[in-house]
Amino acid sequence: MKLLRYGATGQEKPGLLDSDGHIRDLSGVIPDLGPAQISPEGLETLAAVDPRDLPTVEGAPRLGPPLAGIGQIHAIGLNYRNHAREAGMAIPDEPILFTKATSCLSGPDDDIVIPRGAQTVDWEVELGVVIGTAAYQVEEAQALEHVAGYLTANDVSERDHQIRRGGQWVKGKSAPGFGPLGPWLVTKDEVPDPQNLAVKLAVNGEIRQDGHTSDMIFSVARIVAHVSAFLRLMPGDVILTGTPAGVGMGMKPPVYLQPGDQVTVEVEGLGVQRQQVRNQ
Amino acid sequence: MKLLRYGATGQEKPGLLDSDGHIRDLSGVIPDLGPAQISPEGLETLAAVDPRDLPTVEGAPRLGPPLAGIGQIHAIGLNYRNHAREAGMAIPDEPILFTKATSCLSGPDDDIVIPRGAQTVDWEVELGVVIGTAAYQVEEAQALEHVAGYLTANDVSERDHQIRRGGQWVKGKSAPGFGPLGPWLVTKDEVPDPQNLAVKLAVNGEIRQDGHTSDMIFSVARIVAHVSAFLRLMPGDVILTGTPAGVGMGMKPPVYLQPGDQVTVEVEGLGVQRQQVRNQ
Repeated sequence: MKLLRYGATGQEKPGLLDSDGHIRDLSGVIPDLGPAQISPEGLETLAAVDPRDLPTVEGAPRLGPPLAGIGQIHAIGLNYRNHAREAGMAIPDEPILFTKATSCLSGPDDDIVIPRGAQTVDWEVELGVVIGTAAYQVEEAQALEHVAGYLTANDVSERDHQIRRGGQWVKGKSAPGFGPLGPWLVTKDEVPDPQNLAVKLAVNGEIRQDGHTSDMIFSVARIVAHVSAFLRLMPGDVILTGTPAGVGMGMKPPVYLQPGDQVTVEVEGLGVQRQQVRNQ
Repeated sequence: MKLLRYGATGQEKPGLLDSDGHIRDLSGVIPDLGPAQISPEGLETLAAVDPRDLPTVEGAPRLGPPLAGIGQIHAIGLNYRNHAREAGMAIPDEPILFTKATSCLSGPDDDIVIPRGAQTVDWEVELGVVIGTAAYQVEEAQALEHVAGYLTANDVSERDHQIRRGGQWVKGKSAPGFGPLGPWLVTKDEVPDPQNLAVKLAVNGEIRQDGHTSDMIFSVARIVAHVSAFLRLMPGDVILTGTPAGVGMGMKPPVYLQPGDQVTVEVEGLGVQRQQVRNQ
């Protein structure tokens, strides 16, 4: 299933994308798409619904983040060798874990807002993993059992705030609008191998990132197991799995997002995001 | 008001502490104590309630974290000079911001659980700040207007996970039970000056930390303003404001928590926590 939330910010309704590419309204079936609805039982209930029995949503409404009630956004740094190299950082021995504030979340096509005074806002296409059941100290072999699905993400980053404002990365990862997720939460039955997905990002039509999840240093299963060694992953948590080479910081000279730029973000099979950049 | 939540984990009911030190049940007035109930309007509603009209709760029930629906736990590192010195770290030029996973939260007297294999679990008494209204890019002079109240916190930390597992601190700050909050959320009208509070922690009756919020490098107002420069603080967010000297890591040789240890944590006027340490 391709689950989604549509409507104005803060007033999104649950829906799904049918096989013809139309949005069908799920608000007669569930109150919203949250942690409870993406539990194994919740997804079973949704899978039993025939999309043809649901009202079609006309037009092209705004999409919100495809999940409500996301409790935590965990993110992995430097998970592609060529990105670590362009960032001038060592290849990590184990996944580097940092956090994005949940208040940064936005819809897949919402504007990227350059915070007042910021000059180094950068892009990062990433495969996002959505947790369906709580996971603490799980083994790699069982880790994917805790995953509900996957989504496209742009881990928007302000590099000066990330790197030069006190050592921890959260400051540069968390401004409002720095977390576009979606368009859809694609349930894992439709993603047979998360390590076999192209990840691409273009700015103003020029391809900047052209990577593949087969090049990850640490696989999705390894990441889920590793993070769960330190904290309890909760239903509705999202893990961003790192970005391949091609970010603005790595260009010579560095290039950062400017008002008016158009960013296109895609993970194979998980849908495309289209963001316009603007000043706050 | 001293607001609290009492009952078994996950089934807490809202309550308040009356002037005689008895718990009064608020569940006939509000469904729970969450972000909506600590908004200015929510607190006004509660302040209009006469505690004598509420049922008295008999016995000494378990207390949970005094707030439900905490969306984010922001934490400030090295905010007391003598703690930075004992940690062997530089005095920061601006607040260091890191994150604790919300899934670490626990009640004030719940056990501190040493994760399997962990050997360097440490204590940190801290003044916790509870956000009542959203705050983004607010000035220091207005920052405290966004605060609903304060609480005692123990920023339990696994030092090896914090320092030697990839550079970002979240791994060592987030295990289940690493976030005891409470006993109460004390509304700010009862805390005339957050920079005038003694903060103390004892292990097995021996005082280990004996600090004062007047020694903070960055004040609560400065911290709220600073964090809000980078991310939108949301109602129900908690900010931990750093710990004074006297953590186990700073002792010579270092001393860490062991099963059976009793930890007592107190911020002046905000109540005492009593935790027993045990293995997972």
